[in-house]
Amino acid sequence: MFLTRTEYDRGVNTFSPEGRLFQVEYAIEAIKLGSTAIGLKTKDGVVLAVEKRITSPLLEPSSVEKIMEIDEHIGCAMSGLIADARTLVEHARVETQNHRFSYGEPMIVESTTQALCDLALRFGEGDEESMSRPFGVSLLIAGHDENGPSLYYTDPSGTFWQCNAKAIGSGSEGADSSLQEQYNKDLTLQEAEAIALSILKQVMEEKVTPNNVDIARVAPTFHLYTPSEVEAVITRL
Amino acid sequence: MFLTRTEYDRGVNTFSPEGRLFQVEYAIEAIKLGSTAIGLKTKDGVVLAVEKRITSPLLEPSSVEKIMEIDEHIGCAMSGLIADARTLVEHARVETQNHRFSYGEPMIVESTTQALCDLALRFGEGDEESMSRPFGVSLLIAGHDENGPSLYYTDPSGTFWQCNAKAIGSGSEGADSSLQEQYNKDLTLQEAEAIALSILKQVMEEKVTPNNVDIARVAPTFHLYTPSEVEAVITRL
Amino acid sequence: MFLTRTEYDRGVNTFSPEGRLFQVEYAIEAIKLGSTAIGLKTKDGVVLAVEKRITSPLLEPSSVEKIMEIDEHIGCAMSGLIADARTLVEHARVETQNHRFSYGEPMIVESTTQALCDLALRFGEGDEESMSRPFGVSLLIAGHDENGPSLYYTDPSGTFWQCNAKAIGSGSEGADSSLQEQYNKDLTLQEAEAIALSILKQVMEEKVTPNNVDIARVAPTFHLYTPSEVEAVITRL
Amino acid sequence: MFLTRTEYDRGVNTFSPEGRLFQVEYAIEAIKLGSTAIGLKTKDGVVLAVEKRITSPLLEPSSVEKIMEIDEHIGCAMSGLIADARTLVEHARVETQNHRFSYGEPMIVESTTQALCDLALRFGEGDEESMSRPFGVSLLIAGHDENGPSLYYTDPSGTFWQCNAKAIGSGSEGADSSLQEQYNKDLTLQEAEAIALSILKQVMEEKVTPNNVDIARVAPTFHLYTPSEVEAVITRL
Amino acid sequence: MFLTRTEYDRGVNTFSPEGRLFQVEYAIEAIKLGSTAIGLKTKDGVVLAVEKRITSPLLEPSSVEKIMEIDEHIGCAMSGLIADARTLVEHARVETQNHRFSYGEPMIVESTTQALCDLALRFGEGDEESMSRPFGVSLLIAGHDENGPSLYYTDPSGTFWQCNAKAIGSGSEGADSSLQEQYNKDLTLQEAEAIALSILKQVMEEKVTPNNVDIARVAPTFHLYTPSEVEAVITRL
Amino acid sequence: MFLTRTEYDRGVNTFSPEGRLFQVEYAIEAIKLGSTAIGLKTKDGVVLAVEKRITSPLLEPSSVEKIMEIDEHIGCAMSGLIADARTLVEHARVETQNHRFSYGEPMIVESTTQALCDLALRFGEGDEESMSRPFGVSLLIAGHDENGPSLYYTDPSGTFWQCNAKAIGSGSEGADSSLQEQYNKDLTLQEAEAIALSILKQVMEEKVTPNNVDIARVAPTFHLYTPSEVEAVITRL
Amino acid sequence: MFLTRTEYDRGVNTFSPEGRLFQVEYAIEAIKLGSTAIGLKTKDGVVLAVEKRITSPLLEPSSVEKIMEIDEHIGCAMSGLIADARTLVEHARVETQNHRFSYGEPMIVESTTQALCDLALRFGEGDEESMSRPFGVSLLIAGHDENGPSLYYTDPSGTFWQCNAKAIGSGSEGADSSLQEQYNKDLTLQEAEAIALSILKQVMEEKVTPNNVDIARVAPTFHLYTPSEVEAVITRL
Repeated sequence: MFLTRTEYDRGVNTFSPEGRLFQVEYAIEAIKLGSTAIGLKTKDGVVLAVEKRITSPLLEPSSVEKIMEIDEHIGCAMSGLIADARTLVEHARVETQNHRFSYGEPMIVESTTQALCDLALRFGEGDEESMSRPFGVSLLIAGHDENGPSLYYTDPSGTFWQCNAKAIGSGSEGADSSLQEQYNKDLTLQEAEAIALSILKQVMEEKVTPNNVDIARVAPTFHLYTPSEVEAVITRL
Repeated sequence: MFLTRTEYDRGVNTFSPEGRLFQVEYAIEAIKLGSTAIGLKTKDGVVLAVEKRITSPLLEPSSVEKIMEIDEHIGCAMSGLIADARTLVEHARVETQNHRFSYGEPMIVESTTQALCDLALRFGEGDEESMSRPFGVSLLIAGHDENGPSLYYTDPSGTFWQCNAKAIGSGSEGADSSLQEQYNKDLTLQEAEAIALSILKQVMEEKVTPNNVDIARVAPTFHLYTPSEVEAVITRL
Repeated sequence: MFLTRTEYDRGVNTFSPEGRLFQVEYAIEAIKLGSTAIGLKTKDGVVLAVEKRITSPLLEPSSVEKIMEIDEHIGCAMSGLIADARTLVEHARVETQNHRFSYGEPMIVESTTQALCDLALRFGEGDEESMSRPFGVSLLIAGHDENGPSLYYTDPSGTFWQCNAKAIGSGSEGADSSLQEQYNKDLTLQEAEAIALSILKQVMEEKVTPNNVDIARVAPTFHLYTPSEVEAVITRL
Repeated sequence: MFLTRTEYDRGVNTFSPEGRLFQVEYAIEAIKLGSTAIGLKTKDGVVLAVEKRITSPLLEPSSVEKIMEIDEHIGCAMSGLIADARTLVEHARVETQNHRFSYGEPMIVESTTQALCDLALRFGEGDEESMSRPFGVSLLIAGHDENGPSLYYTDPSGTFWQCNAKAIGSGSEGADSSLQEQYNKDLTLQEAEAIALSILKQVMEEKVTPNNVDIARVAPTFHLYTPSEVEAVITRL
Repeated sequence: MFLTRTEYDRGVNTFSPEGRLFQVEYAIEAIKLGSTAIGLKTKDGVVLAVEKRITSPLLEPSSVEKIMEIDEHIGCAMSGLIADARTLVEHARVETQNHRFSYGEPMIVESTTQALCDLALRFGEGDEESMSRPFGVSLLIAGHDENGPSLYYTDPSGTFWQCNAKAIGSGSEGADSSLQEQYNKDLTLQEAEAIALSILKQVMEEKVTPNNVDIARVAPTFHLYTPSEVEAVITRL
Repeated sequence: MFLTRTEYDRGVNTFSPEGRLFQVEYAIEAIKLGSTAIGLKTKDGVVLAVEKRITSPLLEPSSVEKIMEIDEHIGCAMSGLIADARTLVEHARVETQNHRFSYGEPMIVESTTQALCDLALRFGEGDEESMSRPFGVSLLIAGHDENGPSLYYTDPSGTFWQCNAKAIGSGSEGADSSLQEQYNKDLTLQEAEAIALSILKQVMEEKVTPNNVDIARVAPTFHLYTPSEVEAVITRL
Repeated sequence: MFLTRTEYDRGVNTFSPEGRLFQVEYAIEAIKLGSTAIGLKTKDGVVLAVEKRITSPLLEPSSVEKIMEIDEHIGCAMSGLIADARTLVEHARVETQNHRFSYGEPMIVESTTQALCDLALRFGEGDEESMSRPFGVSLLIAGHDENGPSLYYTDPSGTFWQCNAKAIGSGSEGADSSLQEQYNKDLTLQEAEAIALSILKQVMEEKVTPNNVDIARVAPTFHLYTPSEVEAVITRL
């Protein structure tokens, strides 16, 4: 019954009788409205690719940042509310910098991901850093540390998983199927770039150009491709 | 169904079942009631132009400030609730001054924009500086730093984009179309002034005078045009 | 539809779907119930005049203070909830005194007005100085500083405008029309006094006497007219 | 329409669409249920007189305090919720004592009244001293300072007025009319006592005795009449 | 109309349109469910007597404390919620001890009563010592200080009165009538004991025994009667 | 009328029109769902006995703690929400340890009980130690101090009583009747053990074994019976 | 009646008329949606086994951590919301590390479990560490301390029990029955591994592989089985 359901879903952080947290589920819906992002882990590093959705020709494509650097060995692609993502990324940047300052070495990727998720989980609690609602964003976190390359996927509930490949955003369902077909552990970085871009092409409704996609790799350091590097990948396709 | 919708839209910072944040969307509506503002980036600097809406001949035109200086290398034009804009601008002024004091150099334009948006995002959280509702204002932030001239557009959700040209406020739809037709990257500052003013003229229902528009440039420092400088641009048209 | 509207208007600081802030709009209604106040700026100083509404012959007319001094170079006339106005004025007095103490010179009039409006904007945020609802008062702030005489008009939303002349309160609509007809920049202080009083006379339902109106000027220091000075202006009419 | 009205009147400090504050208006209703109190200012001092409403013969008349001393030069009569009045009076006593301690001289009567009203205005704000609802009490504050005798009247909105004479409480309407007829500025203290008591007699439903009325004067210091002094005034009538 | 009424009565501390505070009125109802307590002041001291309501023969009668010592010169009898009374008494004990420590002399009875009532008035304000609802208890406070013996009666609104004699609790209506008939100021302590007990006997539905009534006197120090002293009073009847 | 009732009973700490506190009454209901516990005071010490409700044969019986030590001279049996009981007991342990540390002697039993009840009373007030709802637990507190053995019974309202014998939990009604028949003040500890266990046997639906009951005594120190000591009491029956 | 029920179940921490806490009961429902986890205590140590639910072949199985180390002598298996579990485990890790630091010895298992449950109980209280809703997770805590091996089971109410064997999650009902049949106290660790895995096999709908189950033991230190160790147990079956 729909009316009964609405009685639970506005409570920011309240269980429904079936044990569900509706605000978190609705935040997950926000991501289904977001642009598509794809990540693939290879033995040489991780590739991230995102759809940029330039809504107006007057926008500076390079300012629609949907791939951001966290530390020199970690980057992330996002889908959902960009302002929320920036808050999480800023929080992660402070954590990784503090870690470098305190321990003289880079923070490992999983700890960085956990720190991000701790903040995401704490919504609705009224302390200074947390939000009054769930963060409406999913992240693909690509990194490289003493354990080699790794790719993490986070959702608004504050849960994270390690993946070999993963798609998020409005086109994630189709993209995940394609990834399962095409992924294998022995891909080269170049093959991973090509797969990511070709899948992105399928889910986007327009032609792929250096203006409407971004690609980055962490191999072993973060590098956001220049327009001409993106162009090169497109050409290879 | 309308009734179901209203159940979500009063929660200040709550997701609806479709993943939407209604209070932010309603704040964006507030801006559609605001006066029109236009920004254009040229290679020599950025031009801002705003409609002033002098509701009474007894008002002092120069006190209807819809273009404000943030720092000597950054200014902004606003549309929406002016008192909200003043709070954001004041916050940005403190940030840029602190930056100059701490680092001995001007704050870069993107960081200033991010600082503004951080405050805008934090509404509903009850800490000292944030508001209990979204800020009902959009800004066009014009600046000039080590990366040359830049123009940013912010909305009440705390998101920002870098643009070549952008219009906000009640006349923004028509103005954006005109900008797309007339904008190119090789415009001179003088050409940009003329385009901004001619587009403003189209969306305003009265004759353009030094009393009901304001123009400013950041090239490379902020300068608000005197009435006679505005008059000169009008004459050139 | 009225019922839908009421769902938004009790939230102290919440946008309606059309982007409106109803509590602020209702506070503005409170002022339409208030007594009329008028301000005129001349090149020699500013004149303020208010209707006093002595509800009982037992009240001491001089205690119905609707014109108050903020600092020796700034005064204000008010319409709406008097207790709210006193809080704002008290806040402004502390600010101007602190400024004198810290900088050894008077605070400029616009900064004083901004400080008042900052407090007015912050309602509903729960910190120590702010109110839990909008301030139900409008002010006409008359001052004289290094930029010469100036007149500001503030409303409950925390917005302010600089004016040459302005009326607030229940008779403001008619009074503003009269002001537009009679105002010009070359008025002498004496002429401004006469205009203010003659317009007040039109909107008041009773005979004008030193008991039911107050007049003040800032030229260049604040001076509240004594009953005999008011009598003199009445006689001149 | 009554139903629409109730939607606004429970919000502790919220404007209705007509710009009204219902909780304050309801608190003013509380005073219309209260006992009657009367104040008269003469050139020699101020007289206060109150109805005591001894509900049971077992009550100690002297403990039904409806006239209280604030400082040796200030006293007040109250109508409405006695416990609320005690809080305000206690607050004023601390303020006047602090003033004497800091400045070595008595606090002037208007400042004392303002301090009382500041506290009354701040209801609903959650800080330590303020109430979560309006104070349900009106006061007649009688004092004598460097400006001579003065009488102030405060209401639950935190507003105050200076008066020559004033009645509050359930019989105030009739009493105010009588005061207007009988008051003149040249009354002696003795005449004022007689007028206050004779008006009180009209509005009370029982015979006036030293047990059911209290009289006090500030001339120039506060003095609560003993039963025999009250008896003497009754006899003079 | 009942429905309209319920709209106000759940707000912890809110005025109804008639100026009433329903939560306080409902707390007063709680006392009408309580056991009966009686106080009488004589020239030699004050007598308190309470009904104990031993609901089970397994309860230790002496642990059903409805008369408690506050300081050696002050005691009180209670009716209503016992846990609430204990909080108030504990607060009063701390106040009287602090007074002795700071001033080297006992706190006078009225100040102690005022301190109790201050705490009772502050409900709903969220500070550390106050309750989130009115205290559901009435007290008869018996004391002896430099002004001789005194008896105060407090109710949940934080109001207090000084009395010669007073009954509270479920049997208070009948008991108050009897007290008015039998009380006079020249009673001896022994006569007061007999009157208190005989009235208690009328309102209780069972035989009076040392197990189901408690008697205490403050004359001039607090003394709770032993079972045999109670027995002696019963026998005298 | 049921609907009217529900309007009051969700307010955590609010009086209904009849002066009732429904959340406390509902918490008392929680205890009626709890396991049965019995206490008896003898001249030599106090006996506590509880039903353990081992819901699965896989549970470790000794970990179902429904009798806990507070200090070496005080223990308690509980019925209701075990997690709530643990919080109260932990609070009491800290209080008794602090007392020993500060005064070098054990805390008396009544003071310990009062400290527990103070915490229970403070629910809904938002400070650090208190709960946001009433504690859903009743305790039988057995102790031995300078006044000899004592047994207290507390309920969720924060009220406590001293008893000779008392049963709490789902079987308390029948158990209390049996206690009244069988209790007398001259019982030995051994007789008390037997009575407690035989009554527990009546209200439990299964055979009594060392696995599903616990027994403890405070005589004069707390001792929880070993399975074989329990077995011995069962055999004696 | 269902409608009446919903009136209580959204209050985060409120009793229903029958004495129930619905939010806690709904959190318990969340666990019935979770993956199954099993724990068995033997005389040589404790075995934990969990179903991993790899929803996509692209997920890294080792990153789906449903068994986590708390300290070297304590580990836990979880069912329900993983992000909540991580918060509790992180809290427990800090507690155990603090204990080691302060006392130079490991924290005993029961105290660790109590610390976890204290945090779980404190939901809805608004302090810094607690959640605004119950934790939606159950834990099986396996440990080894001076008292030998032990297994605890916690639920969202903050209650814990010591067990010999226990299953949690969606398959717990069937698994608990099987455990009761197959468990005895003389099991070897190897037998316990086999029982745990064979029961897990029954409740999972797919073939058991090292990718979709995890096994760990605390004997006497925590050890998470490598894929090949898991494979070995599978083969033994």
